[in-house]
Amino acid sequence: MANGSGEAPQGLAAFFAPRGVAVVGASAEPGSPGHQIVAQLQQTHYAGGLYPVNPRAQEVRGLPCYPGVLQVPGPVDLAVVVVPAPVCLVVAAQLASRRRQRGDVAAAVVVSGGFAETGPDGRRLQEELVRTLRGAGIRLVGPNCVGVADGHTGLTTSFDLGPYPPGGVSVLSQSGAFVMSFLHWARPLKMVGLCKLASVGNMADVTLTELLGYLADDPCTRVVGVYLEGVRDARAFVQAAAEVAARKPVVVLKPGRTAQGARAAQSHTGSVASPDAIYHGAFRQAGVVRARTVLEFYGTVRAFERLPLPRGDQVAVLSAVGGPGTVCVDEVASQANLRLAQFSPPTRTRLQAVLSDIAAIGQPEGYVDMTGSLTARTHGDALRILLADEGVDAVILLTPPPTFLEEEEVARHVVEAYQEQPPELRKPVLVVLTFGNAALRARRVLEAAGLCTFEFPEEAAQVLARMVEYAQARARLGVSPGRPPVGKADGTSRGDAGVV
Amino acid sequence: MANGSGEAPQGLAAFFAPRGVAVVGASAEPGSPGHQIVAQLQQTHYAGGLYPVNPRAQEVRGLPCYPGVLQVPGPVDLAVVVVPAPVCLVVAAQLASRRRQRGDVAAAVVVSGGFAETGPDGRRLQEELVRTLRGAGIRLVGPNCVGVADGHTGLTTSFDLGPYPPGGVSVLSQSGAFVMSFLHWARPLKMVGLCKLASVGNMADVTLTELLGYLADDPCTRVVGVYLEGVRDARAFVQAAAEVAARKPVVVLKPGRTAQGARAAQSHTGSVASPDAIYHGAFRQAGVVRARTVLEFYGTVRAFERLPLPRGDQVAVLSAVGGPGTVCVDEVASQANLRLAQFSPPTRTRLQAVLSDIAAIGQPEGYVDMTGSLTARTHGDALRILLADEGVDAVILLTPPPTFLEEEEVARHVVEAYQEQPPELRKPVLVVLTFGNAALRARRVLEAAGLCTFEFPEEAAQVLARMVEYAQARARLGVSPGRPPVGKADGTSRGDAGVV
Repeated sequence: MANGSGEAPQGLAAFFAPRGVAVVGASAEPGSPGHQIVAQLQQTHYAGGLYPVNPRAQEVRGLPCYPGVLQVPGPVDLAVVVVPAPVCLVVAAQLASRRRQRGDVAAAVVVSGGFAETGPDGRRLQEELVRTLRGAGIRLVGPNCVGVADGHTGLTTSFDLGPYPPGGVSVLSQSGAFVMSFLHWARPLKMVGLCKLASVGNMADVTLTELLGYLADDPCTRVVGVYLEGVRDARAFVQAAAEVAARKPVVVLKPGRTAQGARAAQSHTGSVASPDAIYHGAFRQAGVVRARTVLEFYGTVRAFERLPLPRGDQVAVLSAVGGPGTVCVDEVASQANLRLAQFSPPTRTRLQAVLSDIAAIGQPEGYVDMTGSLTARTHGDALRILLADEGVDAVILLTPPPTFLEEEEVARHVVEAYQEQPPELRKPVLVVLTFGNAALRARRVLEAAGLCTFEFPEEAAQVLARMVEYAQARARLGVSPGRPPVGKADGTSRGDAGVV
Repeated sequence: MANGSGEAPQGLAAFFAPRGVAVVGASAEPGSPGHQIVAQLQQTHYAGGLYPVNPRAQEVRGLPCYPGVLQVPGPVDLAVVVVPAPVCLVVAAQLASRRRQRGDVAAAVVVSGGFAETGPDGRRLQEELVRTLRGAGIRLVGPNCVGVADGHTGLTTSFDLGPYPPGGVSVLSQSGAFVMSFLHWARPLKMVGLCKLASVGNMADVTLTELLGYLADDPCTRVVGVYLEGVRDARAFVQAAAEVAARKPVVVLKPGRTAQGARAAQSHTGSVASPDAIYHGAFRQAGVVRARTVLEFYGTVRAFERLPLPRGDQVAVLSAVGGPGTVCVDEVASQANLRLAQFSPPTRTRLQAVLSDIAAIGQPEGYVDMTGSLTARTHGDALRILLADEGVDAVILLTPPPTFLEEEEVARHVVEAYQEQPPELRKPVLVVLTFGNAALRARRVLEAAGLCTFEFPEEAAQVLARMVEYAQARARLGVSPGRPPVGKADGTSRGDAGVV
């Protein structure tokens, strides 16, 4: 994957799997940006060539440092540039020279700010930067960005991502903070496996639209999350998103529902404000899922990575805790595209056989309150029965870390019932552990086994509604339900193959 | 506070500050409910008498164990009962005898299930239990409940609450899981200080309504959170909530917006289903704040404990991160009762002086994007300027754990700017640290200093909207804005005295 000595990568692949990376502006001073990027590439075990470039350093973190890009020996497909904005133009000219001489350097990430986001002078600098690079056939991500990362090759231009579990989630973002926030949030419980990341900054050359097109064909990307503030050509973006959505889920978080939000977006990314309604209607029609909040975005993206698509809208809620169970039922019933399941008579009989006499089965339809009188095994038994009912398309299971049961044992029984399902017929199970950090051990077991865990009942219901929304759009658009025609991930991702 | 040797507590106070507690069904077997409750009372440093009762044990956790409640020597104001349901009736008779002979035992918590929630037989048992206790003048919380706890006296009947920071939050709940969930969730960052907790279970005697009345007069309760599924006399409940809300904030989470949610609530607590709209309208009118989600409930309750009430609806959003800042502005603008502030000309000038040239000030009005070019001190300086503007009633500050700044130093500058405000004129500051667990150190500093931290931008905007809603209701109802007439908390609570 790391493309250490193979062929030159084609097109945008140079950003994610370069044979070698030059870090221009690499620094021996710990804590500086140019130092951090080199440190990150060492820590993520990026296997390609790593070449610090800085005329004032001999060595950076044990690596020989080159005075300029022209002096770097091995193939360099990607240059990461962290020098002051005016110096970036000098560097761009050197990159262009190198490309003309050596044929490599197909891609550049300019991390530095000080361009169009600062006013007319910066805009002129940026235009010149693009002109120089484009003239030599070098593509640019940025400037003013976190840049790119690839969970499989270990390539990263971030200051602080660190080693990240590889997987099927690719994220495109018009905010570096947004995408880093997501990954840092998901890291402790390994709730997300990273495929590709691109924080596009000022988007002077490579656009969100182009990256979407690239991810459509990327076999290891199983779901694309996009943080969108606005793009010049909204029509092209929506069209590209629709094409990806026909193959794999696309989840978008887009502020700008209000005039003030749109104004903030404009001052942040300089994005041209197309009316929000244009995006909204087009997304719906194309099966592009729009998350309403950051937390819903997080949950929906990771559910699409992990879980199979529901084949229908019939939801069973299975709870060991009355209050949170009630809240969940209320939220499921509030979602326009979810229905509480109708249990078959055999399902009721089988549930009665494994649950205590005081459990409430089907009050209302689709809901099982197991009550506190239960064992670890009961969780798995009841889940197994619900998953076997043809009238159930998905299960939300709610459980606290039980005071009198072994938390990890409960989790293992749930995992067993989930994994026993034949892979091609697997139904999604969303597990709500309502005690936050107190249930970390159970969450770890469940996440490691490919299930999705949540802290709040409403969160699980909303995420499931977004999954059903996507499944329904696929059916409406004539794509075979539940099995998008994308290739299998490369096996480094944990858990269920999901929609693959 | 622990009432170790003083006067007998009056009325419901026997549940929270008893001179002595008998644990009937105490057990020497670790892990059993009767063992856990004794262990909890030892761990929370409850200072009153602690008397295990069990005819089959000599000693429980180093304490002498008595064969029956009649044999307990010291004053026993509260009996906690954890024995099988039929045995509860025998115990109730003994408690009644003791009360007639000794005059103590004013209160009983029956933790055990097996009563009305199980059917007609259980209902008959429950009726007899209440008859026996009431006949002797003993009040009952439960049966089938977590029971009560008091963060100040250390009294607890829970299996697993453990020592909890004392404070101004009291919670009443028709779900034990719900209230325990809240406290376990808040514990790691000490986001909540506990005053009184009551999980009412089957509510056979002491009701939510009566407890609300009790908390209205409780000087250390600064905010009351209620998880409500439904009560027999909705009118009386709403009336009681309105009376509390005239003095201190009441936050309610009530599922049952949908018919299915109402049905689940009914099967859980046997609550009579009054139409949801009855509660909803009455709450609005009375200034009882209704949270829409569990997370919003959590956030709103703790904000009321910590922060002063906003004196108006004008919000400034101060962000170090463009994307999350944009999301926050969008959410603030979406809230019907929030407005983005209009900065005064001096505020703009002063912000320009401390921020970098590329910071975006007032785009849109009320929003400051500091951009990445800033120091730890800048956070405090900009916050100070906004808080000094008369057109700003509250500030939402968004910041990630900065890669190139010291996280705790950023937090300390924010704390300094917040605490410099004269206490009686203090404006609320809600801090969003968008990187979840990655920002734990900053969150710890901020929470310990009495600020409220959040993971998500929308969360902070929604919580602030609920605070403004309450402040507006108080103004409408003629209560002096921002300063409810409740006594000051007893000083053990951290942070700002808030609405006191």
